[in-house]
Amino acid sequence: MDPEVHLPQVPLRQRTATLEDFNTLPSHVFPTNTRVRTTGEIELGGVPVTELVAEHGTPVFVMDEADFRGRCRRLAAAFGGGEHVHYASKAFLSVTVARWVADEGLALDVASQGELEIALTAGFPAERITVHGNNKSEDFLAVAVRAGVELIVIDSVEEIGRLAKVASGLGVTQDVLVRVKPGVHVDTHEFIATSHEDQKFGFSLASGSAERACLAVVDAAGMRLRGLHCHVGSQVFEADGFGLAADRLLGLWARLIDELGEESDEATALNTLDLGGGYGIAYTPDQEELDVETVASDLLRRVRQTAVERGLDAPVLNVEPGRAIAGPSTVTLYAVGTVKDVHTSDDTVRRYISVDGGMSDNIRPALYQAEYDCRLANRHAIGTLVPTRVVGSHCESGDILINDALMPDDIAAGDILAVPATGAYCYMMASRYNMLTRPPVVIVGDGQSRVMIRRETVADVLALENIDLEKTPR
Amino acid sequence: MDPEVHLPQVPLRQRTATLEDFNTLPSHVFPTNTRVRTTGEIELGGVPVTELVAEHGTPVFVMDEADFRGRCRRLAAAFGGGEHVHYASKAFLSVTVARWVADEGLALDVASQGELEIALTAGFPAERITVHGNNKSEDFLAVAVRAGVELIVIDSVEEIGRLAKVASGLGVTQDVLVRVKPGVHVDTHEFIATSHEDQKFGFSLASGSAERACLAVVDAAGMRLRGLHCHVGSQVFEADGFGLAADRLLGLWARLIDELGEESDEATALNTLDLGGGYGIAYTPDQEELDVETVASDLLRRVRQTAVERGLDAPVLNVEPGRAIAGPSTVTLYAVGTVKDVHTSDDTVRRYISVDGGMSDNIRPALYQAEYDCRLANRHAIGTLVPTRVVGSHCESGDILINDALMPDDIAAGDILAVPATGAYCYMMASRYNMLTRPPVVIVGDGQSRVMIRRETVADVLALENIDLEKTPR
Repeated sequence: MDPEVHLPQVPLRQRTATLEDFNTLPSHVFPTNTRVRTTGEIELGGVPVTELVAEHGTPVFVMDEADFRGRCRRLAAAFGGGEHVHYASKAFLSVTVARWVADEGLALDVASQGELEIALTAGFPAERITVHGNNKSEDFLAVAVRAGVELIVIDSVEEIGRLAKVASGLGVTQDVLVRVKPGVHVDTHEFIATSHEDQKFGFSLASGSAERACLAVVDAAGMRLRGLHCHVGSQVFEADGFGLAADRLLGLWARLIDELGEESDEATALNTLDLGGGYGIAYTPDQEELDVETVASDLLRRVRQTAVERGLDAPVLNVEPGRAIAGPSTVTLYAVGTVKDVHTSDDTVRRYISVDGGMSDNIRPALYQAEYDCRLANRHAIGTLVPTRVVGSHCESGDILINDALMPDDIAAGDILAVPATGAYCYMMASRYNMLTRPPVVIVGDGQSRVMIRRETVADVLALENIDLEKTPR
Repeated sequence: MDPEVHLPQVPLRQRTATLEDFNTLPSHVFPTNTRVRTTGEIELGGVPVTELVAEHGTPVFVMDEADFRGRCRRLAAAFGGGEHVHYASKAFLSVTVARWVADEGLALDVASQGELEIALTAGFPAERITVHGNNKSEDFLAVAVRAGVELIVIDSVEEIGRLAKVASGLGVTQDVLVRVKPGVHVDTHEFIATSHEDQKFGFSLASGSAERACLAVVDAAGMRLRGLHCHVGSQVFEADGFGLAADRLLGLWARLIDELGEESDEATALNTLDLGGGYGIAYTPDQEELDVETVASDLLRRVRQTAVERGLDAPVLNVEPGRAIAGPSTVTLYAVGTVKDVHTSDDTVRRYISVDGGMSDNIRPALYQAEYDCRLANRHAIGTLVPTRVVGSHCESGDILINDALMPDDIAAGDILAVPATGAYCYMMASRYNMLTRPPVVIVGDGQSRVMIRRETVADVLALENIDLEKTPR
């Protein structure tokens, strides 16, 4: 469940080697319903960007509802039903989006009490909610159990005791999974089968602590072990890692069945294998999103086959995509401000294009060295390609959105730039640094736009402060 | 004006080699009015942490007002008057804090329209405000000029034209500085005298673009060149870099006087040298904050001497500390939740202590690999020191506050941990990731605590959303 360090395969500069390349939209990086007019102006969900900017200002997150819903459906179909696809709400959560997810028949993951509260506010059915987190308090567990969530993912020995107390106190038997570290870590394009396990989540498979935790759960009051959970990485393009993790979890599964006795209630209750999320999306033109249909059918087949080989009933397979649903749905539109040529050495010049947002609305380039695509959105460019860096308006030199690209030299103040694939981990991780308050999130579809989340203002910042605080004696 | 990559000199593990070390508060890293009771409980501004937590909850930022104000006074005294010390509000800005800064006679830097609006809301005198930013829009410039700010720092050629239009339109002559890249970059403990200049701020001294920009400002309508600005780095402990930058700026200064004619109005208007901020503070016990008195007297002497050598009237010297004022004033208190031992290899175990905040309230460890100190705040520890990592509650494995420290093994759920020196760039860069809403900021002094900024709630998140948004046709 961890955002990634993204390792691009092709340097950004090579991606747009000609003006025609730059003016040709990489459609697989933009939302489904993106079109380019003959003038070069981009339409999102049927709404021209100049219209979006006139109505909603910049910066603005523009979310293609049909793209988001379409990905929900594709994943549900690939994995044999929406109940097997748990949308990881940390990628992007709002009441509206939770309702879309419910509407499409998917399940929902939450990782904090706040995420759970928003899901419940949306009316998301609790019996389709799974609760994650490395540090669940008794209060959070009590809210979750009382709400009637389907599953709580046990992440520590202490949590077993906490949940036993809470669930017993409420007279409830809570279904749980145990989070296992399978020793498989996928880093975008390769996986490590013997990865170190020095991180906060889960129980180690190799050390035996996962098995001990499962048996402790079985023995604990107030809960029922429904299965195992793991997560192998983020922005994954190497699907074999999922399969290897599944194999290893099924090894533990078989040992548990053995220890519990095949016909026992505890053994028959075991039915869920949750392989987490991490399905890679295309941030840049050289990337191709993970083919979820192929991954799903391969994984389902492999799990069934491994189960047969081990003499087990095949468990239900659940997955937890977040980025793969929300990420590609959204484009951030920025207005160009200052354009400046900087001599980086005697014979090279880099153009700096400043936009009216930056690390406050997208921390991922600074935090993960993440790379994004960027296009002129209001017209075709006509200039000559020059080495360009797109930077934000923050008072910090690391406030960079696009580190190094070739972009046309006619881009000027007032132009609109579009950065695609900003639907996941951008608005959710947004700050108010330098008092650049959060942009709005606008939904588009069928030629119309509607404000889902309004723009924050300085008044919203001040609303938290007691500005009439009297002075203290010194 | 750029936060830093902080390079600690002593591995964290060595800092608390014994239990006594751990139980001994490193007083230079905590706010001035921090005391330890005989029980080991920490008092901040005379208020015991258990009382603070009982009243305000966790996590909570606790700001020692007297510490903040004391640093304002020290810097004002060191640099010959508050008017020469411009508090860099991006480090921490609220209406209350802006009033403290005004009250202590300091000047104020803002780097965005939002920061300016908050300063004006506080009633901060506009004639003591300097305006920064790489991407100032015409609107922002108009608000600043209309408000009557003292100085605008010109950062690009385009901005000269924008400001000329705005100021002329308003019939105002705006005083300005020109931001210069002096080719000096200080990276904590060393400086590079020929640093590359591949960043968005300022005009290159070496290429001649700074000089051309100054002359363009002199020729432009609606503005008057008052001096030069530079910024050499952040979290600086090697003060010689400031002096070298000053020398270089005075070289440009002399050339400008020459070109303008010594007796000209334009030459006599030149009177301000702004050397920016970057004064290092102690985040960890092995660090010592930059001795501002020594730095100030050395710098003032050096600038006077260099001016004499060049036959110039010595300019006024201004500085822009942000972190050095706000940083040490504040301690973040967290409640301990889950404690978990993780086998990192066959023979090592790392303890993971989870707290109820994390990268949402302090992104600096994840973003800059920044290191912090961390102490048990509610009692003396009695356990054995073990390798420990302090992590947050976010659904992300990189959510680490203290990467590798030796901490006593009796720290358990319900204990309170204190992380000092969190007054700068923590609350300001805070997000709501995983719907962990922002902690409150509480002021302490004279045994009392008061809420300056209240805790955010999920209701605040939902207040931005149109949660009754009707469904769109698919």
